[in-house]
Amino acid sequence: MIIIGERINGMFSDIARAIRRRDPGPVQEWARRQEAMGAAYLDLNVGPAAADRVAAMRWLVEVTQEASKLPLCLDSTDYDAIAAGLEICKGPAMINSVPAVQEKMDRVFAMAARYGAEIIGLAMNETGVPRDAESRVALAVELVANCDAHAIPIDKLYIDPIVLPVNVGQDQGPAVFETLRQIKLLSDPPPKTTLGLSNISQGTKNRELINRIFVVMAMACGLDSAIGDACDEELVKAVATARILLNKDIYCDSYVKIFYNQGR
Amino acid sequence: MIIIGERINGMFSDIARAIRRRDPGPVQEWARRQEAMGAAYLDLNVGPAAADRVAAMRWLVEVTQEASKLPLCLDSTDYDAIAAGLEICKGPAMINSVPAVQEKMDRVFAMAARYGAEIIGLAMNETGVPRDAESRVALAVELVANCDAHAIPIDKLYIDPIVLPVNVGQDQGPAVFETLRQIKLLSDPPPKTTLGLSNISQGTKNRELINRIFVVMAMACGLDSAIGDACDEELVKAVATARILLNKDIYCDSYVKIFYNQGR
Repeated sequence: MIIIGERINGMFSDIARAIRRRDPGPVQEWARRQEAMGAAYLDLNVGPAAADRVAAMRWLVEVTQEASKLPLCLDSTDYDAIAAGLEICKGPAMINSVPAVQEKMDRVFAMAARYGAEIIGLAMNETGVPRDAESRVALAVELVANCDAHAIPIDKLYIDPIVLPVNVGQDQGPAVFETLRQIKLLSDPPPKTTLGLSNISQGTKNRELINRIFVVMAMACGLDSAIGDACDEELVKAVATARILLNKDIYCDSYVKIFYNQGR
Repeated sequence: MIIIGERINGMFSDIARAIRRRDPGPVQEWARRQEAMGAAYLDLNVGPAAADRVAAMRWLVEVTQEASKLPLCLDSTDYDAIAAGLEICKGPAMINSVPAVQEKMDRVFAMAARYGAEIIGLAMNETGVPRDAESRVALAVELVANCDAHAIPIDKLYIDPIVLPVNVGQDQGPAVFETLRQIKLLSDPPPKTTLGLSNISQGTKNRELINRIFVVMAMACGLDSAIGDACDEELVKAVATARILLNKDIYCDSYVKIFYNQGR
């Protein structure tokens, strides 16, 4: 399980301001902080307020790469912005995200093939997010088929079952766990999985507690990565411990410290 | 998921001393404390040092019942001690435990049928604990068959896949998760599941962190109960949160507090 650091996002006011003023300071500081806490990727999202999303994404990629060598996860519904970012990424990047909608899959998987990028595919389509695991898995199958049609290795595809806040759709937690389990049976090697962790606790109390318990439960069901708060120390400790319990890292007394240093 | 409070056990020096001196104070204090923290059962174990285990178990049952109305989990390898305890339990109790060894199953399931008791069945036999999930499930099938042969409802049987310390058998964590998942497919209704939680962290650092991450991961795989430290507040909060995420309790902002009050 790896954490994709969520913090460089124009939804946060310090990042929105930094993008407006083209001030690299806050962006680079968050890049370094998240890397130091063990983030494996840095999500970059220009946010809803950016005037020119293509230019803003290009700038974000440039200044982030000056501060960190971590791979980037280009996060936008504007595929021109993603294409502009991919063009200047120094290493392989991740595209965040594409739903199971044919014309969007056509464009995104073609971009991914061209740039050797990984892709986050969403278990939703034009009609929204299904309520049950079976319908989510059916959409995952469409994503896998389209990935395969572009000759992209299946383990470059991260499927996101779509998490809803626990106080809104409480039956969706078990549906997400079941979706994760079934996705791991789809192919060999199976697609990878991811989710937007902070969604589960939107509008609840005890947000951090809910986030970290949810993520380790999801790991027991096959979760490979999560977009989340890499600077939440208790979350990072929970993830490091779950990796040990899943026999993904070798146990030693200082395993939490090693997790930080290796940046999984 | 319910917690079977582990603290009234002669392995702890205060309880060993209380049993020797027939001093009800420490036993009754731990009974009340564990009940207040939400324990659903109280495990009673006279420990290895008790001179007369039958008399000691009878005394433990008597004094515990004076302090708490919680059902008791009679924990001994001495089935005479368990029989003596069952005789004086005011409500239905749990027998902890029986391995998949024929003559032991014969005696324990007969006792359980007579007293309407629940049973913890261990996924081990004369040759020890299997290393893989499949062999553990094969032993679970033997336990289910013997339970059924005594006309005991299958959901009175709690199967314990047997947890080894993570620093000793690190591959056993995933095997336990897989065993839990498969046990839930054995019958309809399926057997319940349990485990000795503190075993996972025996000899490790960060014991409480490892315990609480392990238990919620196991819950995602079908764990129904665990013998553990009901007075570990972070553990109880983790379990309460996992219950919410599995849609077992209804979310509200004060769900942790409600968990304590209802004693699940």
